[in-house]
Amino acid sequence: MRDAWERPGGGGGVSAVLTNGNIIEKGGVNFSAVWGILPEHTRKSMNLPADDALEFFATGISIVIHPHNPMVPIIHMNTRYFEILPAGQGVTKQWWFGGGIDLTPHYIDENDARYFHQHLKTVCDSHHRDYYPEFKTWADEYFFIKHRNETRGVGGIFFDYLKGENGFTKESRFAFVKDVGSAFAPVYTHFMKKNNALLFGEQEKQWQYLRRGRYAEFNLVWDRGTKFGLETDGRTESILMSLPPQARWVYNHQPTPHSPEEKTLQLLQKNIDWIS
Amino acid sequence: MRDAWERPGGGGGVSAVLTNGNIIEKGGVNFSAVWGILPEHTRKSMNLPADDALEFFATGISIVIHPHNPMVPIIHMNTRYFEILPAGQGVTKQWWFGGGIDLTPHYIDENDARYFHQHLKTVCDSHHRDYYPEFKTWADEYFFIKHRNETRGVGGIFFDYLKGENGFTKESRFAFVKDVGSAFAPVYTHFMKKNNALLFGEQEKQWQYLRRGRYAEFNLVWDRGTKFGLETDGRTESILMSLPPQARWVYNHQPTPHSPEEKTLQLLQKNIDWIS
Repeated sequence: MRDAWERPGGGGGVSAVLTNGNIIEKGGVNFSAVWGILPEHTRKSMNLPADDALEFFATGISIVIHPHNPMVPIIHMNTRYFEILPAGQGVTKQWWFGGGIDLTPHYIDENDARYFHQHLKTVCDSHHRDYYPEFKTWADEYFFIKHRNETRGVGGIFFDYLKGENGFTKESRFAFVKDVGSAFAPVYTHFMKKNNALLFGEQEKQWQYLRRGRYAEFNLVWDRGTKFGLETDGRTESILMSLPPQARWVYNHQPTPHSPEEKTLQLLQKNIDWIS
Repeated sequence: MRDAWERPGGGGGVSAVLTNGNIIEKGGVNFSAVWGILPEHTRKSMNLPADDALEFFATGISIVIHPHNPMVPIIHMNTRYFEILPAGQGVTKQWWFGGGIDLTPHYIDENDARYFHQHLKTVCDSHHRDYYPEFKTWADEYFFIKHRNETRGVGGIFFDYLKGENGFTKESRFAFVKDVGSAFAPVYTHFMKKNNALLFGEQEKQWQYLRRGRYAEFNLVWDRGTKFGLETDGRTESILMSLPPQARWVYNHQPTPHSPEEKTLQLLQKNIDWIS
C-alpha cells in the first residue's frame, strides 16, 4: 500500500507499507520533504534562539521492518536533512544531517550483533575514524528504554546535528549519510536470508510479542521523533507505521533461568563492545 | 498474583493482578501510599511554588480491567489523595482529592453508555449538582487521544484538586470520593453479567485488539499518571499493569461502512450527552 500526503503548511510525503509478505510481516517506508515556518514549540525543543521567526526545510527517509520469524531481527533506519533560515534574511542559513541504523533482535545472537556492528563500523571508518565510536555510543544512549532499564536492541549508530564544521563540508557529510542509507538493504538482506531459515515455535512467537511490546513502549514513550510528530499534528498513520503488527504484555514476566530469553535480556545493555 | 513493594524515599504499595479469569483476561489493582520530599520536576509539573522544599504524602487506588469478551467494556477507576507541606513549617498544609471512573467499550452500545453515565450522575448528584456536568466534561477532555482525534471510550467522570473551599470540607470531599470508589464494583458487575453472554467471533476479537492498541497509545503517550510514573522511576510493572494483554496495529485501518465498528468510531467524540 502506498499513500501520498500533503502538509498544509508546505510539502508532504509518501508512506509505503508491506503487510504479510513472505518474510516481512509489517514493513514501512516513509519519505517526507516539508517546509514552512518553524512552530514555536519545535524551536524550543531544538534549543534554537527564540528571537526571530524561522523558516525551515526538512526531509527524511525512515524504515522499520517487523519480520514474521522471531529469529529475524527488527530493523530501523533513518536519514534526515534539516535547514533553518532566519525569516526575511537569507544569509545565515544553518543545515545539518542526522540519521542512523539500529537492530532489535528478539533473540540476541552475538555473532549477528558483531556482523551488524562491523558492517556499520566499516561504513563509518571510510568517512572518519571518530564516527563509529561516537555514533555507536549515541545509539546506546538514544535507544534506551529507561523505565525498563533495557536497551531496545543491540543498538547500531545514531547521529544528529552533523554540520559543516571541523573540516567537514556539506558534501562530505552527505556522502556519509548516503553510505548509511546504502548500507541498510545489504545488511538486512543478510539477516533475512540467514535467519529466516531458523526454526521457531509457539514459545518463540510469544516472546516475540513481548519484545514487540517493548518496541511499542520505546516508540510511544521515549522516541523523540514519534513524540514530536504526535504532539505537533503530524500524519499519525505515517508516524505510527513503526509500531509492531501485534504486541503483548504480561505482568512482571520473568524468563526461565538460563534460557535464550534470559540471555537476551542480559545483553540488552549499553556499552557492549560487540566487535572485539 | 499479589506483590508488595517499597519506595526507597518512603512508603510503598501493593499490586494485585488477575490473569485469564472466566470473564477478566487481565485485571489489576494498585494501592500505594508514598511520602517524602517532592522531586523538583514533580513540583514543576504540578505548578507548585518553587521557593521551598516540600514534603508530600500521596495515596491512591487504581483499577483497570480488560475482559476476554469484546462485548464487555474495559473499565478504569482511580481515587487519590494528596498532601503537601512546606518543609520545616507544618502550618500551611495543602490537601486535595482526585479520581474518576471511565468506560472504554470495544463496541459502543448507547444504552450501556447511558446506564453508565446515569449511574455516575446519581452518585455525583447526591453530593453536588455541579459535580456531574463538570467532571463529565473533564473526563471527555482528559481521556482524549489527540493524535487519533478520538476519545478513549465513552468517558465517565474525572476530577482533581478537590480542596476544602467554596463550602466543601475534607469530610464532604472524602465522602464523595468514597462513593465514587463504591460505585465501581456494582456498575462493572452489571456489564460483566449482562454483556459476557453476548456472542462474538474472530472479527470482533480482531477489532478488540485494535482498540486495545488505542488504549495502549493513550496510556503511553498522553496519560499524565503513566508518563509521570515512568519518567520519575516509579515501579514500572505496577504503572504498566493498565496495558492490555495484547494489542494490534494495522496501517490506516478503515472499518467497513455502516458496520458496528464504524458506528463505534463515530461515537468516540467529546461532548456527547449520553443521558438525554
